[in-house]
Formats: sequence, C-alpha cells, structure tokens
Amino acid sequence: MEVKIGLVGAGWMGKAHTNSFVNALMNFGPEFGKPVFEMVSDVSEEAALHACKQLGYARWTNDWKELVSDSDVDVVDIATPNAFHYEVAKAALENGKHVYCEKPLTLSAEQSLELAKLAKQKGVVNYVGYNNVMNPASAYIKELIDSGKLGEITKFLGTYDQDGLLDPTLPITWRHINKFSGSGALGDLGSHLLSLSQFLLGNMDRVNALAKTVIKQRPVSPGSNEMAEVENDDVISMLIEYENGAVGTISSSRIATGRKNYLFYEIQGTEGTVHYSLERMNEVNVYFHADQEADRGFRTVFLSPEHKGYSAFYPAAGIAIGYNDMKVLEAHELLSAISIGSPYSCDFEFGAQIDNTVSAILESAKQQTWVSMQTKGGLTV
Amino acid sequence: MEVKIGLVGAGWMGKAHTNSFVNALMNFGPEFGKPVFEMVSDVSEEAALHACKQLGYARWTNDWKELVSDSDVDVVDIATPNAFHYEVAKAALENGKHVYCEKPLTLSAEQSLELAKLAKQKGVVNYVGYNNVMNPASAYIKELIDSGKLGEITKFLGTYDQDGLLDPTLPITWRHINKFSGSGALGDLGSHLLSLSQFLLGNMDRVNALAKTVIKQRPVSPGSNEMAEVENDDVISMLIEYENGAVGTISSSRIATGRKNYLFYEIQGTEGTVHYSLERMNEVNVYFHADQEADRGFRTVFLSPEHKGYSAFYPAAGIAIGYNDMKVLEAHELLSAISIGSPYSCDFEFGAQIDNTVSAILESAKQQTWVSMQTKGGLTV
Amino acid sequence: MEVKIGLVGAGWMGKAHTNSFVNALMNFGPEFGKPVFEMVSDVSEEAALHACKQLGYARWTNDWKELVSDSDVDVVDIATPNAFHYEVAKAALENGKHVYCEKPLTLSAEQSLELAKLAKQKGVVNYVGYNNVMNPASAYIKELIDSGKLGEITKFLGTYDQDGLLDPTLPITWRHINKFSGSGALGDLGSHLLSLSQFLLGNMDRVNALAKTVIKQRPVSPGSNEMAEVENDDVISMLIEYENGAVGTISSSRIATGRKNYLFYEIQGTEGTVHYSLERMNEVNVYFHADQEADRGFRTVFLSPEHKGYSAFYPAAGIAIGYNDMKVLEAHELLSAISIGSPYSCDFEFGAQIDNTVSAILESAKQQTWVSMQTKGGLTV
Amino acid sequence: MEVKIGLVGAGWMGKAHTNSFVNALMNFGPEFGKPVFEMVSDVSEEAALHACKQLGYARWTNDWKELVSDSDVDVVDIATPNAFHYEVAKAALENGKHVYCEKPLTLSAEQSLELAKLAKQKGVVNYVGYNNVMNPASAYIKELIDSGKLGEITKFLGTYDQDGLLDPTLPITWRHINKFSGSGALGDLGSHLLSLSQFLLGNMDRVNALAKTVIKQRPVSPGSNEMAEVENDDVISMLIEYENGAVGTISSSRIATGRKNYLFYEIQGTEGTVHYSLERMNEVNVYFHADQEADRGFRTVFLSPEHKGYSAFYPAAGIAIGYNDMKVLEAHELLSAISIGSPYSCDFEFGAQIDNTVSAILESAKQQTWVSMQTKGGLTV
Repeated sequence: MEVKIGLVGAGWMGKAHTNSFVNALMNFGPEFGKPVFEMVSDVSEEAALHACKQLGYARWTNDWKELVSDSDVDVVDIATPNAFHYEVAKAALENGKHVYCEKPLTLSAEQSLELAKLAKQKGVVNYVGYNNVMNPASAYIKELIDSGKLGEITKFLGTYDQDGLLDPTLPITWRHINKFSGSGALGDLGSHLLSLSQFLLGNMDRVNALAKTVIKQRPVSPGSNEMAEVENDDVISMLIEYENGAVGTISSSRIATGRKNYLFYEIQGTEGTVHYSLERMNEVNVYFHADQEADRGFRTVFLSPEHKGYSAFYPAAGIAIGYNDMKVLEAHELLSAISIGSPYSCDFEFGAQIDNTVSAILESAKQQTWVSMQTKGGLTV
Repeated sequence: MEVKIGLVGAGWMGKAHTNSFVNALMNFGPEFGKPVFEMVSDVSEEAALHACKQLGYARWTNDWKELVSDSDVDVVDIATPNAFHYEVAKAALENGKHVYCEKPLTLSAEQSLELAKLAKQKGVVNYVGYNNVMNPASAYIKELIDSGKLGEITKFLGTYDQDGLLDPTLPITWRHINKFSGSGALGDLGSHLLSLSQFLLGNMDRVNALAKTVIKQRPVSPGSNEMAEVENDDVISMLIEYENGAVGTISSSRIATGRKNYLFYEIQGTEGTVHYSLERMNEVNVYFHADQEADRGFRTVFLSPEHKGYSAFYPAAGIAIGYNDMKVLEAHELLSAISIGSPYSCDFEFGAQIDNTVSAILESAKQQTWVSMQTKGGLTV
Repeated sequence: MEVKIGLVGAGWMGKAHTNSFVNALMNFGPEFGKPVFEMVSDVSEEAALHACKQLGYARWTNDWKELVSDSDVDVVDIATPNAFHYEVAKAALENGKHVYCEKPLTLSAEQSLELAKLAKQKGVVNYVGYNNVMNPASAYIKELIDSGKLGEITKFLGTYDQDGLLDPTLPITWRHINKFSGSGALGDLGSHLLSLSQFLLGNMDRVNALAKTVIKQRPVSPGSNEMAEVENDDVISMLIEYENGAVGTISSSRIATGRKNYLFYEIQGTEGTVHYSLERMNEVNVYFHADQEADRGFRTVFLSPEHKGYSAFYPAAGIAIGYNDMKVLEAHELLSAISIGSPYSCDFEFGAQIDNTVSAILESAKQQTWVSMQTKGGLTV
Repeated sequence: MEVKIGLVGAGWMGKAHTNSFVNALMNFGPEFGKPVFEMVSDVSEEAALHACKQLGYARWTNDWKELVSDSDVDVVDIATPNAFHYEVAKAALENGKHVYCEKPLTLSAEQSLELAKLAKQKGVVNYVGYNNVMNPASAYIKELIDSGKLGEITKFLGTYDQDGLLDPTLPITWRHINKFSGSGALGDLGSHLLSLSQFLLGNMDRVNALAKTVIKQRPVSPGSNEMAEVENDDVISMLIEYENGAVGTISSSRIATGRKNYLFYEIQGTEGTVHYSLERMNEVNVYFHADQEADRGFRTVFLSPEHKGYSAFYPAAGIAIGYNDMKVLEAHELLSAISIGSPYSCDFEFGAQIDNTVSAILESAKQQTWVSMQTKGGLTV
C-alpha cells in the first residue's frame, strides 16, 4: 500500500525524515507501506522548490495550509520549528490526516493534551518522533523489565550531556529563547531521557528540579558586541519519584565539556540492573542476580537479530547500527501503522505525557519545590 | 620519631588500621614517623587480648578510658562502632592526645562541631579517616581543578552504589538502626562522595533529598520469622547547589543489584571534565577542551609517580594500587602530621562539615524541601 | 553527472551496494555523481527480475555478458560470489567499463595482478570494495601516521574474530570450499585487516602463518548425517615483517566464541599509539607521548566532522555512524571518481597487493616457513 | 610454625619480598607459617646492613654462602640479579634448604632443569616467583578452563607491553645485556605471559618468533656520548602451537608507547571465552555460549570472595586488590607450603619449563624457523 507523504518544513529535519522513509522502504520492503513523496511545503519558496527537486517530492507549496488539506496527502509529516507543531498538527488532524510530528509534540502541556484528544477522536495515526524509543536497545530493555527479569525497579539514573553550546561566543539561537524552545537543555536533550523513562518505567508521581543558566548572555550574531539574554537552562538536574515508588535522578547539560552525545541511563531492579549509553549504542549492559555467584557480572550484550528492529539492517550480531537507523525504524513503524494498522509506541498521548512532565519540571525549578503530576495514572485522553 | 598508638576497638577496622600503619612504615620509612603499637582496648576482654597478640600491641585493656589517659599513648586511634566515636574522641582530646577517628566523626552535626572546636583549642592532630581523599586520583583531580585546567565548575554528578544488602533475608544490623548508624546508604556510602565533593568542590549552599526504604523489615536473626523495622534509606538521591553556583546530583543505593563498589563521579568545568570510578581506581579520565579539535577525547590516565602518593608503592605507571593502599596513605599522612608536623586534609573541621551536610540532607528528606546549610562559607571552629 | 550502474549479482551484497548508492546520493547530492540504476543481472532469472523491481533497476538480464557490453552501462558493479569476480571484471574492463568489484578482487594473486594491469591500461576507474578503508576512523588514523604524530611505527597487532560459524551442526557452505572461497577466516575476515594494514602501514616484507581447521567436517545440509570436509582455516595466526621494519601480528578466527564483529588493531609508534575496535566503531583511541607526563593517557576520540567522511552524516561529534555508512562512503567515492575524477584508495592494484599477501600467507601456512613477498616495494602494474 | 627466612639480595626486590611476608602474616595469620626475618645478605656490606635494620632482619652478611649454609635459615629467598639465581639456588638446595627464587629460575634451560631435578631429589619446597599465577583472576580462569565451561581451547592471544624503555636517551642497563638478562622484552615481560600460558593451557608443541631491536644503541651512562650496543629484543612476537592443538599468538614490547603495564590475554574455547588485562586487574571478562541468545555477552566479573585468594584482603566483591597483593599471596603460598605442606603452583619444574620455552623462542628467532619443544609432554625431572 502506498503512503502519500506531505512534508511540512524543508530543513535539515525534513531531509532526515525523507531519507528515513527511503531507507525504511529499502530495508523492509513495500509490504510495510511504500512511501510516496507527494508534496513538500516551506515558508521559503526557494527552500520548498529546492527540497522538492532534491528530495524527490512530486509537488511543492509555500503554504502549509494547502498541504494539510490536499486530498492526495495521507500523512502530514511535521518537521517545522517546534513552535509551529501545534498549529500544523491541529489543522492536519481536523482535515482527518494521519500526523507524524517531530518531537516535542508542542511547547505546552495543554496544547499537547488537546492534540492527543483530537487525534483520538479522529481515529487517525498520530505519531511523535521520539526516536530513542525505537532503538533496538530500548526494545530489549523494555523486554527485560516487562518479563520481570530485573525484578521490582528501585532506582533510575540518567543523564544527557553534550558540549555543543559550550563556547560563549556562539550567538543566541531559537534554542535560547523560550517562546521558540520552551526550555533549554531540558527540552532539547533531557526530553529524550524523559521519553525513555516514560517508555520503560511509566508515569512519574512528582518531580523536583534545579536549573541553571551558566552563560547568561550571548552575542546576537557571530562576532557582535550586542548581547541578548539566554532565557533557559544550560544545566538542569532533577529528582523524580515514580508512581511505582522508584527513585529517579536525571541531569542534563548542553555545556558539558567533553561529552558529545552522552545519553546514559541505568535502571536498577531487585533482580537485575541494566545500563546503556547512546555513545556506545550497540551495547546493552545487563546484570542478572540469578547468575551463579562466582560468574556474576554485567554482560555487554551487542545488539543482534534477537533484538527487535535490528534484523532489518544486519543478519548477525555486533554489526554497528547508527543513530539514523533509529529514525529509519521510526519511519518504518509509522508506515506500518498507516498501511497495515500495526501498533506503535509514541502516539500523541505519549507525547503529551512528556510535555506534561516537562511542564511540571519547569514549574518545580521556578517554585523551588516538589511538583506533583496533575495526571496521576496518566492522561485522560 | 616514634608515634605510640593506642587503638580503641579491636574489630575488623582496628586490624585494618594497624596493618596500614605497618605498611606506611615499610613504604615510607621511619623518618615520617615510626608507629609503635602501644596499647589496644576493646570492651570484649577476649577481643582485646587476641588483638594485642595478633596485631602486635604491647599492652591491652578492656577499658578505653584507661587507654585515652595513658601517658605512653601519643595518638588515640578510634575504630569503634560509629556511635561511640564522640565519647572516645572527646575524652582523648581532653587528655591532650592526638586523635585519629575512623569516619564519620560522630552521628550528629552538633557533636562533630563541638569536637572540631575542642581539637582546635587543644592544638593536637585531629584526623578523620575519609580514605578516598587520600587516593592519588583525588590528589590529581584536585590539582586539575585548582590549577584552573577544568575552568569554572558547572556540574557534579556522583553515585555510590553497592548491592551488599540486596538480599531481604539478611538480618537487621546496626546499619539499619539510626541510633547506631545515623542514616542508611547516605552515611555508609554517600558520605564518601560527600567527602570527595567537599575536598574537591568546597562548600554547598543547599540540598534537596529523596530517600526510600525499599526493604522495610528484616529478620532479627538469620532465618528468624521475627521481623524488625529498617529505619533508614536503602536508596537516596539529592540535588545540590554549591556555593560557587554549580549544580550537583548525588545518589546512593545499598541494594543496587550488580554494583559492587561503584563510587563514580564526574566534574564538568568550562575548560575540561574529569570522571572517575573507584571500581577502576587506577584510571582517571580527563578531557581538555584546549586540545586540538580533531584529537579531543577523554584521556584514560593511569596513576603514576606523577600523582601524589603513588610513588610510595611503585616506581612506574600503571601498576595497580589497591583499596587498602588509600588507608596506608592515610596512616602515613597521620604519622607525618604527628611526627614532623606536615599538613593534612581531613581534620575534624572537615569531618564536621560533612556531618553537617549529612544532617541537612536528612532534614531535607524529612521535610521534603530544600534545606540551606547553616554554615555558609564553612564552619566557624 | 549521471552514473549508469550495471549490477552483476542480485543477492544480499547486490542489494547492499544499491542501497549504498541511494544513500550516497541523499547524503552528498548529485554533484558528486548521480547513480542511475540501469540494469541488473543474475544467473537466476527470478532473482534478476525481483531485484530489478525491488531495487529500482530499469532493465534486467540473466546473462551478465549482455550487461558488461551494454552501451548504456557506465560502471559494472560486481556483487557475485567471489569465484566469478575475475571473469566478470575482465570482460567489463575489456569492454572499457569502469569496474566496482566487491572484495576480494579475485581468488588468485596472478589473476588479480592481471586485472590490475588491464585496468591501468584501459584507464578506467577500477575499484575494490574494502569498506573498512572508507571508515572515517581509518582516514583519521592514516592522518595521524602520515603527519608523523605517531613517530616511527614499531609494532602492529590485529585480530578479527567472529563466532558465526561456531556451531558444528551448521552445514558446509561455499566459505568452507577453497575453489569458491580461496581460504577460510583469512579471506573472509583477515583480509579486512590486511586491507587496513596495507592502507596504513604499506607493504610487507615477509609473512609466517599457522592455520588450523578445528571443525574438520560439516553436514552437507542442515540435519544431514552426510558429512563434507572443511578445506580451510577456522583459526589463523601470522607474523609479519614490514618493509619499514615493524613487527606485525595478525590473528583471525571464525569460531571465536563471544566475539561478534571484533576487528581490533593497535599501531605503536615511537611518538604515539593508536588502537581501534570496529565493535566500537565511533571511537579512536590515541596516545601522544608529547602530552604532559601527569596527563598522558589514551584519548577516546569520538568520530566527528573533523574526520573525513563523517560530516556527510552528522553535523556534530559523537552521533553514531553505522557499519553500512562505510559502504555509503565507498559508493560516494566511486561515484565521485567516475563523475568528477576524484582520487580513490582501493584500486585494483591495491586489491591485487592484498591478494598477493593472502597468497603468501597460505603458502607460508602450507610450507611451515617464512615466505617473502615477491613484490618488494609493491606490485609493478 | 615459624619459617626462618634468609634473604639473598637487599635491593628493591628483596624489600618487596620482605613486605609481602609481613602482609601475608597480617592477612592470613601465623597458622599458615609465621615468617621470621633471620638473615639478609648482599655483596654490598652497606646495603646488607641497611636492609637488616630497615627491614627487620636479625643478622646480616656480605657473603651469601654463609647465609645458604646457616643452620638457622629455613628458606633461602633469592632476590639477586637474574644471573646469580643458578649459583645461589644450587648451593641452597645442596644445603637442604627450601628455596624461594624470584623469576626467572635461571638464564638457561639446562641450568633450570638441573635445579628442578636437584630440588626434587632433595624433597624441599622449591618455589619460583611468577606472581601473576597467584592472581585470584588466574585461579578463577583456571577453574573456568578445568571445569570445561570454556569447552575445548582453540586460540590464545596475549600481549605484554610497557613503554618504560621508550626514551632512547635512557642509558644501557643489565636488561640490555644478554649475559645478565638472557633476553629483552621476552624475559622481562613476555615470560609473565608464558607463565600464565603454562599455568592455564599447559605445554606447547612448537614456537616461531620474530624479534627486533629498535633502539640499537644506548648511552653508557646518562648524557654520555659513548654508546653501547643493545643486545636483545625491544619487540618480539611469536606463533605457538600447543600440545592440545590450540593456536597461540604472543607479542611483547618494552617500547610500546602509551602502554604502561598492559598484560592482556584472551583464551577462546568452543563453549566460552575469557579475556583479562592486568591494567584492570580486578575484572575478568567471560562469555558463556550456553547463555540465552538474546542475553549473551561478555560478563565483567569483579574479583570477589568467590575467587581464591581474594578473601584474605576483602570481605566483599569489587574492592580493588593491587599488584603487590599478588606477591602477598605468593608469600602466603610459600609459607604454607613450608609450614603445613600445602600444595603450590610454581615449582622449579614449572620454572624450568618456562625457561625451556624461552630458550626455544630465542632459538626460533635466531634460526628464523619453527622450533619444537624438546620436552613434549613436559620435562622429565
């Protein structure tokens, strides 16, 4: 079955989505949905035209409203800046389109909940691109937890650190302005950990956060003496109490000297423990207390055809998948959901739950106190 | 110069201290203080007698008060259970003895402050056995910070996890009862991280903690059906704001399946980052932003004669020191302080500052709120 | 410029090549050669037809001779079983086609030399698919050597181990029969190390090898009681003396329990050392003796835009490339060579040099003695 | 029981032996032999006197012949330069003394065999100090092999690299002159690997080696312009065929830039594989093919009370033992052998077998050919 794609946003992320659709087709075959590149829109006419030609779309427009209402578009693929997700997704849903929205769903817990409700009512496929959830490592770790092999979960420790914004002479960007980004390291990096936490451990009960802006001003443009205020967190750290009683700790920094793409987390349970680093994305470290005492140790398990998603790429263990391959699995899951109705993990409700958590964390950092989730037991969509 | 030692407490720790003195002598020579094993005391007459013979002490007693006032004892070495540290140390100080107290100094911030003041007034050597501070790795990391090679410190992340108390059928011990231990994982494990944090980053401004008792009851004895309440934290996690503005996160668990002696910490600065794990105690990982871009990476630096303390053991890099060697360096530092007046790191004021932090953390966990240090800028001793 | 591809061999490798061309186009753009999927051939009509449709080729044939002489084919892409490389490549060259041949070039040093000479004479692009050479890590390591940062090279240690053929009940395949494979672990795995050794350290002077067949017989088909003889090495190990005087050691096993894709090598020089494992393909470990003594250690350098090839995939360091991305870089290099005449590393002369080494190694293992390269200073093509 | 020690050689190694005896007593107690420091000899009167006082020996002499015939000496502890081992050991044996000889036994296969025969005839304890055999990791790995958990051994890969002699301005020492050292990196470093290979895998069938002297001359003294010839291997590499059919590869370098104490080895079997590095001496990495496929991976097993020898130092897993602790276990094993007749691993026959292997390796490197062990099935003592 063909899946006709309408891409909104012709930048770097739009290209990445398109490439992922191509690779999903090449790796899984058309029986899981054949992407057809129907239409691309961008506010920049030039960008839209260039993307149309370069990425192989059939048509282009500079008016996304045209695209979301086009009768030949099956799924609206939203790769715009974050601040536009809400508007585009809402219109797409109202037109009865399937929607594939890059993370985050929106910049507001309320808007995300509204979209989740609308999507449910419309009965369309509604997908948020939290790609780390699609990592075969995530599937394996979820399996370890759900099977009980780790026992009762007692502790979560996670950190996502990069040093891309370390240099204080780098000029201000949308990432530093809350109306565009919502938050700093939290939304950009921490939210990936939140997605894994949500996927693997479920709902939180309450959070308590400490946020710091270390580089308080940045030049308005490269080399300029005019400075603009950085509005959000360079460094953030938080305590979490989960609904199941586990204690969580998450920290994130976008000025973490030496850390390149260091998404690390450890989940401790009464029967076993797992830890994982995205910088060594093909290795899951797992410990089973049930092993014989003299031989107990963390096992370095290389991803293999035993782990969901991997075999689309390689027939044997230990052949390295890459970061983009998570996005390819995401594109495949979306195509499958649309074409053959297969289940998927990151729907708008999932995305709204994360935006809800982000909102509670920001509130906590502001109020300097514990903040309880308003959504005990999850959202009511 | 001879240093006549009076050991209070003839158990496992007393033996460890004694062995460390012997090795300090063998590795450094008598010019840094020659330990003489003058007297040992234990409430158990049998234990005292046995230790006297086995460990090579000249005399023994079952009354520590006799020991602390013995004119032939230069330094009182306190290796009793934690709850007795205060009483013994106070009496020893009042008798004008040098005091070497195993960590923690006492179970109360107030008592520790009192001892610190008393020690200062008496002008004797007052030493708390936070052995991780004596690690050559700690000296190296402090040098990296103090020299400015890491720049301004922005983030601290630490965890100390063990799984020694994972098994719920293990009976209750003094560690689970607050009047003996003060706290759980915090005092037992976390305090080592606090000592490193204090040594390397200085004072904290405020703390915010979440503590959990996972195994709520334990048998009163092995195999018994009678259960006793566990009074303190199996798992604890905390946020820290340092006086210098850095964001800190520390967690600790004594039921951390698979983690054996996992004291890990990372210190991020604007010019460099260092991370360290006690499980690989001979390796310091350090990153310098000043390196050429194509060649930047965390360096795995093996301890070597370049790092303070190491050369007492080996003449070349990469020959593994062990955990006990930290205690040997501690014994050497104490002997040197007494015999030749050399400076030392972990005095009673240092120990009191940590007990003060522990107290704030416990208060925070109880009140579910941020707690500010009462000792901004450090204790006034 | 369009590059019209004629693919010979429609199996797993043919598909991998095709996908790589697609990704090369998506990542680099048409200015470095736009692949056009002109024709595919396979001895199986069904396979050819299926591949034509699935992979997007315009035409198909079951007669490769038709393909290699087709006037609309620019480059013949040889993805047949190894034993057919010679015949197809020779015919393609004689027809003046560019040739892209999967490794190894042929199963005989003589045939490979013949092809290298013929290719040179014809003046076409002649490319052998030793993909590990295209790894950005390889480019970085070559740069480290060529710049003199490692000093004079003194020692090479390499191993390539997998356990895919560990199970003795797995039936015999072409890999076990010399007329199809030439050798065992040596040709399959070891040759990748030889390609890196050749690329990085240049020519060898002589070799000395020990080979073992551990599983001497395998079933002719799954579950069969009829057994066939395994003709070649499960395990091989060799000493190497390089022309530059360095000492080399290479070992390889295809029954190396627990090793999944363990291509590891270390190059020691008088000023620095580098080591690398394909299982952690995004990390190069490098040590500079010129660093300050207290801070010396192996640096874990994550691949980044500083390293050739990487920036085609990601804009920042530490985002994991995968195994297939090496093949994408290979496809790009080939397309660039054809379309804009850019230089490339693995030509037929390079491939012939490796086949020559393989031949000397096999001779050494057979004669139980040192065997000198007949090609001191390299082949004369 | 008291064990009266006569130490021959009062240098660095003599001190290390003495310290180890002290620690063996402190860790194991007198019931496994109480060392009594009876007498020390050194050709330098001053050194002998100083050692006597500093190390706590009762008497001293500058004539080792006096020591080896002293009726109050139970065991002669040989810590002289290697070239004197033979003479001293022979005299001690002839006087009916137990002998503890630092490795290597002698510099000649013939002399070592002679001593092994003499020791057997005399019925005394005869012990060679190959300390790596005493590592709790070695005991664990031997247990894994002997229990069959690794299956049939197929491949051994080992390397021992240091960079202590990298600097070409370091002057010539006894290590570079064959009459004092016998060989270079081979005897100094490689022999430790040979001891582990012998202990774990048993006898070799034949060897084939390639040796290089990279720094061919060194100053006769620091800063001198007068140069002396380096007579032996800076780098050596060898192939091994074991009696059991396994393929072995060992390399060693004493100019291995960046490698500090890198003794690494991997043993592959048909059911499991183990690898180990002395730089991370508390971690054994082991893989069991019998594990469930999805969960298979190398386990990082920290040394613990489950592994022989460890519990003398620590009561729980993961507390780092150090390099010296291997020597303490060695001293303990020797004392136990003498005092209570317990078995031990590294007797003179074991040492002679290694010297025999060293001799075959040197012959192979000289003759440029395979050399068979003259001692198939082991020495006949």
